[in-house]
Amino acid sequence: MPESRLNTGRDVRQACRSGEWTEQTAGLARGFTQANLVILPQALAMDFLLFCQRNPKPCPLLAVTEPGQVCPGVIAPDADLRSDLPKYRVWRDGELVAEPTDIAQYWQDDFVSFVIGCSFSFEDALLRAGVPVRHIELQRNVPMYRTNLECVPAGVFHGPLVVSMRPMKPADVVRAVQITSRFPRVHGAPIHIGLPEQIGIGDLSRPDFGDAVPIHEDELPVFWACGVTPQSAIMTAKPPLVITHSPGCMLVTDGRDEELAAG
Amino acid sequence: MPESRLNTGRDVRQACRSGEWTEQTAGLARGFTQANLVILPQALAMDFLLFCQRNPKPCPLLAVTEPGQVCPGVIAPDADLRSDLPKYRVWRDGELVAEPTDIAQYWQDDFVSFVIGCSFSFEDALLRAGVPVRHIELQRNVPMYRTNLECVPAGVFHGPLVVSMRPMKPADVVRAVQITSRFPRVHGAPIHIGLPEQIGIGDLSRPDFGDAVPIHEDELPVFWACGVTPQSAIMTAKPPLVITHSPGCMLVTDGRDEELAAG
Repeated sequence: MPESRLNTGRDVRQACRSGEWTEQTAGLARGFTQANLVILPQALAMDFLLFCQRNPKPCPLLAVTEPGQVCPGVIAPDADLRSDLPKYRVWRDGELVAEPTDIAQYWQDDFVSFVIGCSFSFEDALLRAGVPVRHIELQRNVPMYRTNLECVPAGVFHGPLVVSMRPMKPADVVRAVQITSRFPRVHGAPIHIGLPEQIGIGDLSRPDFGDAVPIHEDELPVFWACGVTPQSAIMTAKPPLVITHSPGCMLVTDGRDEELAAG
Repeated sequence: MPESRLNTGRDVRQACRSGEWTEQTAGLARGFTQANLVILPQALAMDFLLFCQRNPKPCPLLAVTEPGQVCPGVIAPDADLRSDLPKYRVWRDGELVAEPTDIAQYWQDDFVSFVIGCSFSFEDALLRAGVPVRHIELQRNVPMYRTNLECVPAGVFHGPLVVSMRPMKPADVVRAVQITSRFPRVHGAPIHIGLPEQIGIGDLSRPDFGDAVPIHEDELPVFWACGVTPQSAIMTAKPPLVITHSPGCMLVTDGRDEELAAG
């Protein structure tokens, strides 16, 4: 299916549901909010909800379902979380066991789904403001790093804050703080600027996740809390069963990025 | 006169007018907006007004008088600009010729007065938000530097952007951008972060104006456009006569810093 026909969240979800679209969602349905998905059995849901509440910058919750509910609610009222993402990952005891395009066969009546904001939303705002985003220019994944900053633990969930990094010229750093501060529900303002060793990052050319990008002499590395943080905490906890989106294969909602802006 | 009796802009102005206060105004009448003052003959006023309009970050105009008017208007309706600052500087052909506490003897009917926002306003907001400000802690003048960034010229006025520098931990840099962005009428957001050589500053330990302050290993230097910029442009132009406030001896207005906030 050509990308040009996937202009709304609904277009993308229906193409996923019919099996016509099974790839990454970056660049599709521009302006519509894309989100991370975490699905856990109810027994772990309270711990995870508390982890998100205590660590709102890496885990900005957009929606949480009732147990067994397959629709995420008002952000995509006609969505079915079992089929409307391009690809999922199924983890048992912390091990990746399958990467299906539909999770109907795994579904349990006690599943609670967490829809978590994603940096795609603020990156679109940066680009519209004329602030270049290196990994997008280079068509790479954003580089991500484990830091020496511990998340506030909750029940079985704990672990380091994971950050994404975007290099920018100093004047653009100022603009980027202003712009992303408007988006607290999608990671918000940066958590660090310029001194990676202060947050436990030794070598920017070797990210823990994603792809490295060059940093020019007239640029500073700028770090945002990253949605990989909760996934990392879940993998560390090795729950019996958890289902997530496959990297880059997000839930595309009916919400608009600009609706997430605080001011 | 004890400082504790100078709690409002009016208190300070009256103590200046009566000759009871002739010192710096930093820390007086907290929360009331303090401002830079530039007084020029009308023949130069259009050029200078245009210079401010073209360079709003270093020259944020709070008020401009009609020729000969001694009151700055609504920001201090009962003020007399000839007597209500602690100390003035009188410059002829670019040379400092006097530093009086009253300028009645110099007053001309064609004088136009420019009241320009000052960083005291946003520094108070930083302190209230728990962001430490090094030069205030050390009771020094803020360090200021000429940059390699040229102001947009206007008539006889031209010259480099002068910046003030405050060292901060990265997380405080983010907060400082957020906080000072709310104050566009008092220099607003920083113009540079972290790479002084990129804006032509070779040695932070040797400021062009003010006092050096230490920068710790876990801090970045943050640079704001500075009200010394217009003064520097005026001195370069060497007008026959100009009167300014003496450094640190500001006009204290009836306006509140929080009223200057954009949001």
